[in-house]
Amino acid sequence: MSDLLSEKTPIRARHIRPGQGQAVEVKTGQLLQIQTLQGKQVADFVAFTQGDTEEFLSTSVTRAANATIVPKLGMMLYSNRRQPMFEIVEDTVGRHDMLYACCDPVRYEMLGAPGHASCREALTEALGGYGIGHDRIPSPINWFMNVAILQRGELEIREPLAEKDDYVVLRALKDVVAAVSACPQDLVPTNGSNPTDLSVRVYRNEPLPPPPVMEEEPGTVEPSPLAAPVVAMNPTPRPALLQATPEATVYRVARVDPGDPS
Amino acid sequence: MSDLLSEKTPIRARHIRPGQGQAVEVKTGQLLQIQTLQGKQVADFVAFTQGDTEEFLSTSVTRAANATIVPKLGMMLYSNRRQPMFEIVEDTVGRHDMLYACCDPVRYEMLGAPGHASCREALTEALGGYGIGHDRIPSPINWFMNVAILQRGELEIREPLAEKDDYVVLRALKDVVAAVSACPQDLVPTNGSNPTDLSVRVYRNEPLPPPPVMEEEPGTVEPSPLAAPVVAMNPTPRPALLQATPEATVYRVARVDPGDPS
Repeated sequence: MSDLLSEKTPIRARHIRPGQGQAVEVKTGQLLQIQTLQGKQVADFVAFTQGDTEEFLSTSVTRAANATIVPKLGMMLYSNRRQPMFEIVEDTVGRHDMLYACCDPVRYEMLGAPGHASCREALTEALGGYGIGHDRIPSPINWFMNVAILQRGELEIREPLAEKDDYVVLRALKDVVAAVSACPQDLVPTNGSNPTDLSVRVYRNEPLPPPPVMEEEPGTVEPSPLAAPVVAMNPTPRPALLQATPEATVYRVARVDPGDPS
Repeated sequence: MSDLLSEKTPIRARHIRPGQGQAVEVKTGQLLQIQTLQGKQVADFVAFTQGDTEEFLSTSVTRAANATIVPKLGMMLYSNRRQPMFEIVEDTVGRHDMLYACCDPVRYEMLGAPGHASCREALTEALGGYGIGHDRIPSPINWFMNVAILQRGELEIREPLAEKDDYVVLRALKDVVAAVSACPQDLVPTNGSNPTDLSVRVYRNEPLPPPPVMEEEPGTVEPSPLAAPVVAMNPTPRPALLQATPEATVYRVARVDPGDPS
């Protein structure tokens, strides 16, 4: 359970099965927790301003405003009007994606699985009551999705680093409608080849306890780098040493009660 | 002048000054050339299906479908419905961006330059006749924009590699409305700190001459890498050698008549 949220009771809770989507309304200051219940599960995430859905969470503005491709602790997430919509206030994983589109029916046709459930359809269904159709599902933030960037900008989808009960917590900076789908992709390693359930909870705007103590695992200091330093302009081949990718070590927030499954 | 286009006369031509945008209609099979007339100038580019502007060029689907963050020769550009909209059939530069949002009024306010011209406003004005408003300008492809990706996913805007008369040519795979703005950003190195003019031309669908002969400059083989091989999971510091970024060498298509300024 989250340190920030350990004394709180959610005011809204949704359990999401792979291929399903859920929308939740979150008021300014409230906290939104997105948690993987079994681990290695991606949460596709989109959000709109309540009552003005022409404004939505924009991954391209978020990348540009933060000058990064990686969503990380303390960062603001911005709308297409370059207004802050969320702050990332807790993150037990540190590896997420904001480059990939939602999986959709055409993607599964191309993979030889026509009719497969998809995030775009799940989010469209979840947001139907807000008048947001299939074509208007924005480019999502894919919480827990682990995408490596190779030498020439190639993208490689890897198994998520998220383990059972890992989560992110976002503080809403506007009144928003957020929607989350549990990605049903089981044909590539997006969800460790085994999609599982997610939990989404909303907590009231209350004073937060002091920030949690950070515990470092032996030998780890901070989130592992996503890509090597830029050698972009150097056309010579990389040393073989750097082709190796040792297993990740990740920064984890200490948990008050790691045995609590809620 | 382009090898593909050297014998052709454009059916539409637009000259675009920094801070301006222009929309052009391009039918299936026609060729769209976007050219920097002085060099080091970014062209923000968006496109919609003619008569059905709910379908638009999607950078996130294009990244996902090609598993890359780098637009390059031979690649298809996809719509939000995962349908091919364009193929990149010529590219004299090989370094473009599809991560950054358009510059917009809020960006310039933050830079201390309220009221500065912006790509989002220029594209909105160019597309006004098609009913596409400010909030619906998609994340663009930024032709000639040079963005380096650093070790932990940080983005760094550098001066474009494009020189005078460099260009890309796209073949339309649908009937589209495309819009291009000449980025007016003069406060950071996006346009080499000196925005200049662009040219946009549309050519008929005609049989193309054979592909141009590739000329390699001494010591160059192919486009320079954007980022080093993934050492993402290795928390040890990179060797100092790889921190250096020697000046780029770029792959250039041979030109039939390099003296022809048109």
